[in-house]
Amino acid sequence: MDISNELRQKAANAIRFLSIDAVNKANSGHPGAPMGMADIAVVLWAEVMKFDPKAPTWQDRDRFILSNGHASMLLYSMLHLSGYEVSIDDIKNFRCLHSITPGHPEYGMTPGVETTTGPLGQGFATGIGMALAERMAKARFNQSGADFQPVDHYIYGICGDGCLMEGISAEAASIAGQHGLGELIYIFDDNKITIDGSTDISFNEDVEKRFLAHGWDVSKVDGHDQAAIKAAVVAAQKVTDKPSLIMARTHIGFGSPNKQDTSGAHGSPLGADEAQLTREKLGWSEEPFSIPSEVYELFAAAAKRGAEAREKWSTDLAQWKGQSDLGAAWTALFETEKVENLSRAVLDVMEENDTAATRALSGKALNAIAQKLPGLVGGSADLAGSNKTQIKGSEYFSQEAPQGRNIHFGVREHAMGAAVNGMALYGGFVPYGATFLTFSDYMRPALRLAALMKIRSLTVFSHESVYLGEDGPTHQSVEHNWALRMIPGLYNWRPADGTETAMAWSYAVQEGSPAPHTLMVTRQGVPSLPRTETFTATDVWKGGYVIRDAEDADITIVATGSEVDVALNAAEQVQANGIKARVVSMPCLDLFLDQTKEYQESVVSSAIPCVSIELGRTQPWAMLTGRDGLNLGVDTFGESAPWKVLRDFYEMVPEKVAEKIQAWFAKK
Amino acid sequence: MDISNELRQKAANAIRFLSIDAVNKANSGHPGAPMGMADIAVVLWAEVMKFDPKAPTWQDRDRFILSNGHASMLLYSMLHLSGYEVSIDDIKNFRCLHSITPGHPEYGMTPGVETTTGPLGQGFATGIGMALAERMAKARFNQSGADFQPVDHYIYGICGDGCLMEGISAEAASIAGQHGLGELIYIFDDNKITIDGSTDISFNEDVEKRFLAHGWDVSKVDGHDQAAIKAAVVAAQKVTDKPSLIMARTHIGFGSPNKQDTSGAHGSPLGADEAQLTREKLGWSEEPFSIPSEVYELFAAAAKRGAEAREKWSTDLAQWKGQSDLGAAWTALFETEKVENLSRAVLDVMEENDTAATRALSGKALNAIAQKLPGLVGGSADLAGSNKTQIKGSEYFSQEAPQGRNIHFGVREHAMGAAVNGMALYGGFVPYGATFLTFSDYMRPALRLAALMKIRSLTVFSHESVYLGEDGPTHQSVEHNWALRMIPGLYNWRPADGTETAMAWSYAVQEGSPAPHTLMVTRQGVPSLPRTETFTATDVWKGGYVIRDAEDADITIVATGSEVDVALNAAEQVQANGIKARVVSMPCLDLFLDQTKEYQESVVSSAIPCVSIELGRTQPWAMLTGRDGLNLGVDTFGESAPWKVLRDFYEMVPEKVAEKIQAWFAKK
Repeated sequence: MDISNELRQKAANAIRFLSIDAVNKANSGHPGAPMGMADIAVVLWAEVMKFDPKAPTWQDRDRFILSNGHASMLLYSMLHLSGYEVSIDDIKNFRCLHSITPGHPEYGMTPGVETTTGPLGQGFATGIGMALAERMAKARFNQSGADFQPVDHYIYGICGDGCLMEGISAEAASIAGQHGLGELIYIFDDNKITIDGSTDISFNEDVEKRFLAHGWDVSKVDGHDQAAIKAAVVAAQKVTDKPSLIMARTHIGFGSPNKQDTSGAHGSPLGADEAQLTREKLGWSEEPFSIPSEVYELFAAAAKRGAEAREKWSTDLAQWKGQSDLGAAWTALFETEKVENLSRAVLDVMEENDTAATRALSGKALNAIAQKLPGLVGGSADLAGSNKTQIKGSEYFSQEAPQGRNIHFGVREHAMGAAVNGMALYGGFVPYGATFLTFSDYMRPALRLAALMKIRSLTVFSHESVYLGEDGPTHQSVEHNWALRMIPGLYNWRPADGTETAMAWSYAVQEGSPAPHTLMVTRQGVPSLPRTETFTATDVWKGGYVIRDAEDADITIVATGSEVDVALNAAEQVQANGIKARVVSMPCLDLFLDQTKEYQESVVSSAIPCVSIELGRTQPWAMLTGRDGLNLGVDTFGESAPWKVLRDFYEMVPEKVAEKIQAWFAKK
Repeated sequence: MDISNELRQKAANAIRFLSIDAVNKANSGHPGAPMGMADIAVVLWAEVMKFDPKAPTWQDRDRFILSNGHASMLLYSMLHLSGYEVSIDDIKNFRCLHSITPGHPEYGMTPGVETTTGPLGQGFATGIGMALAERMAKARFNQSGADFQPVDHYIYGICGDGCLMEGISAEAASIAGQHGLGELIYIFDDNKITIDGSTDISFNEDVEKRFLAHGWDVSKVDGHDQAAIKAAVVAAQKVTDKPSLIMARTHIGFGSPNKQDTSGAHGSPLGADEAQLTREKLGWSEEPFSIPSEVYELFAAAAKRGAEAREKWSTDLAQWKGQSDLGAAWTALFETEKVENLSRAVLDVMEENDTAATRALSGKALNAIAQKLPGLVGGSADLAGSNKTQIKGSEYFSQEAPQGRNIHFGVREHAMGAAVNGMALYGGFVPYGATFLTFSDYMRPALRLAALMKIRSLTVFSHESVYLGEDGPTHQSVEHNWALRMIPGLYNWRPADGTETAMAWSYAVQEGSPAPHTLMVTRQGVPSLPRTETFTATDVWKGGYVIRDAEDADITIVATGSEVDVALNAAEQVQANGIKARVVSMPCLDLFLDQTKEYQESVVSSAIPCVSIELGRTQPWAMLTGRDGLNLGVDTFGESAPWKVLRDFYEMVPEKVAEKIQAWFAKK
């Protein structure tokens, strides 16, 4: 396609002034990066990327990730110009309450936004997950020599120096290099400016050498030479066995006479005067938010090509599905909303009276689900054996075995979390990560984004609580249950036995979807619990339920995970001393708090005193137990010792718990 | 010094068998890494490092960090053999409750342990902080050409592949390279084995090239050739303008006939049989926990040299302090426990009726303290201007300006957190980091270790709450206050105005030391608050106090930060409607919970209903307000909009708050 230089410049300037004017109007935002990356964006959207603005979730589209999400006006400009459902009024409402153009791009809020970005490095690592998913999909559906390759697209992204300074990008780059993810093409907006000034003050590393060390293909280009950018991207497309980083030397605030190449262009509006000076400098005579028709036409042509490509692909896919023996697998992966009787199938693999660690039970559940749900893929941050997260009968994903459903993430919890998000966003796949619960701290920013995006990102956190044992306080979680529960929309399960573990897993992958879920599972064995006659397994899906009832109960004991068994035994003991105790198992407090107030009250009555038992921070349980409740747990860091020694040390045995309950109740 | 090969091997085997036998006895632990690193350890302790086991906090000692902390038995072995207060019985009690040899090395627990390690990558990054501190100390006290250089030591460390996979190590390596920290010498235990198997499956990056890209000096050595190791370390010592990485090819589980070079040697005891086979293979005839006297003698000789060096240094220092005009500065930095009237000095810079953002007030406080406390140094993760954390009148630390007290950490929150820990551990310095509160998630593992270590690590978290505004939910904290409060021993301040900000800062640097503190400060302006007549500034040091009293109060309103002003105004309004409201300002709940039950009750009476107001997650406030309390805040992710729009949207204005209180109280 031949695009005149004049039109190229006009298109780039259209992006620049949409960005300048929207930021000025909002009186807040980041104009400099969109101004610097405008030429790159023109190349990607007008010449390179395959997309259909009317079908933003088309499975075979190219993905685009703006990892430096503060440059959101670049993305909003492109979505608007390309014909996505982002109007000029939406652009004018940039950063206004309830607009679809918030300060940073948010998945689910704006058509065409593939992932939420802003926290630096997250987009970079999320894209690695998308590329992993694509590679897996290719392995399943593309057949060498076949006329039709149903999976045939790229993952493009732009990142800034901030993304590359964040450790998550090093982790993610290493994973991408390890697996030779050639579908991944990232452009580094190398503008030499950070918020605090020149990158010289804090970022003088050799980026080219670093990415070569990670196993990437690296090229360098003038970020304002559109022809050169295009050539670099085309060259990167041809590198199929390595991810590509194109280092594009750009000028932040390009065209601003007084702010170009300064941190002053980064995070503040140019202001009316500088906007005018920039108009003069770049020869832009359009009014704010007015775009020349030829610019719209340029991007409309790309969108038209995308729409045609999508139509052809859809026709080809339908035909292929009819002919190929892989058609059913495609339908199962990408087009099947629900597997029937999933929870039953998972419950069936749990054995009655099975005393086992919930991590082992979780492993059973995971494998039962893996048989029913072809999209289930995932792995661990170098703790697969400990986390019990291996899908049996499948290989480990590698360049040689891209069909493998198991993934070695390496000791890279943060990139794992973001990659899991990326796989979930890709579509079809139901991805999980795994590590010790304590190391959830290493991946919180990714968990938070999963919750903000409301996507089906799963994490198995094994070795929860001080019962991890001898590894000691550095590895023992005491605050993590609550720290995770504080993230809005993240569902955190601490199952007590096989039944709860099975129901937690099936809820997480299906009934509770799309939302991120975590499973906090034990290292040590726990018994299978007795339940009331009226219990049905779906009670677990209320998040909390009565596991032992007592007529005219005097107290309620709420417990989670390994402490439910303790609570049940303590309840027997206090009942022998005349205190009638109802016991509530609360495998997922977050879900319980989603229930009606009536249900909550029917389970944890506010009319009688309440005890909580959980081996972790205690105080927030006051939301159920009140100021005068009894909260048993651990409010200090743990200790290095065998778990049974710790059980005695923390007096988490029925006799001691019963004693404490009696002493407390006596004062009522 | 000439050490026979036989003695070298004996010494290395002594370490191996102490490790094997201690892990076997504990029936838990990691024998493989100590066995692989034993030769390196012999070289470091017998030939290289400067230390005095009888004075483990000697200021001019070499520091040693075991970043792969699971190899703790290596460190405990060395501390025992070298004559630190770690007895053979302590070794026998490895991983037992309340022993000084817990599963992972813990600072403050064991003499000679310089920092707590185990969570991978933390030690690596903490050492960067120590090296930063040393470079700063050198700039202050070492004079070119002087006979006596009071600061003259190295920071040694060993790290594993797990440390290098963690993103924090990339961040930290980049900082160290940026600043050319030649005092830093790390040895990479390149054993090619991870928990999940060969490093080939998840770590095939080119480590040498990566560290060269980070600006390091890199060498390679056979990790079992002690002479070669020594030569590499000596060469690294001579590289003064770059940190050094020595890649030592080792064999995990060295000497174990069936487990060497396998992940089976990593995290499980060898067992009695394999221990016996290893004894045979290595020709080790000693009983468990018995060490040949010549091995003790070898390390005793090194300790003796260290003791002599320390004595000479102490003499020289005393003389130098008497003669040098820097002597007083040395005393002020390293030997002064307390600055008199510090809090008064900080309060004095706050202006009466000053409506300002608490981040700006924090900047004032920081600068007031910087004048009194020469150890105060720190910086931000590329948000210095936003965080208001620059020390005026001082430069930015760099190779050219090592005297600078300001540090550009770059967009590397995690390494910043660990480096701040390292500076605190180094001694003398009072370091702080800074970023937006939301990005506390990026550095939680480092904050957690600061709390576990009980060190004076400070962090300024500006732009707290949804009032960050237009940047939107990716940047707005809602869960972070509580997520941080859940970390035991971390003191989190959310000051309401200048008085509280001043007192929070002075408490954090002095009265509340040593412990880590965070300051959550606003982007938007807040008014200076009226207080009761009986108020004294040190009331703030109770964590919570009555800021507006009411005789025979009907309710208590507990508020923090920007919501205290709202609470005070709402109290006036409800009082006009007959509800007598006491208002409690709670700048540091963690500290309030440290007070006596009597004090807590006198402030937040359990006899009257209670309201909490804080712009963040609400439910845990039930610990003060009870089940029937009213908790006002934000339990969802935020929204992108100007802060005043959000204030109205979340109804966080006195009128609306008063209405809600009245409606709630009417139902009592």
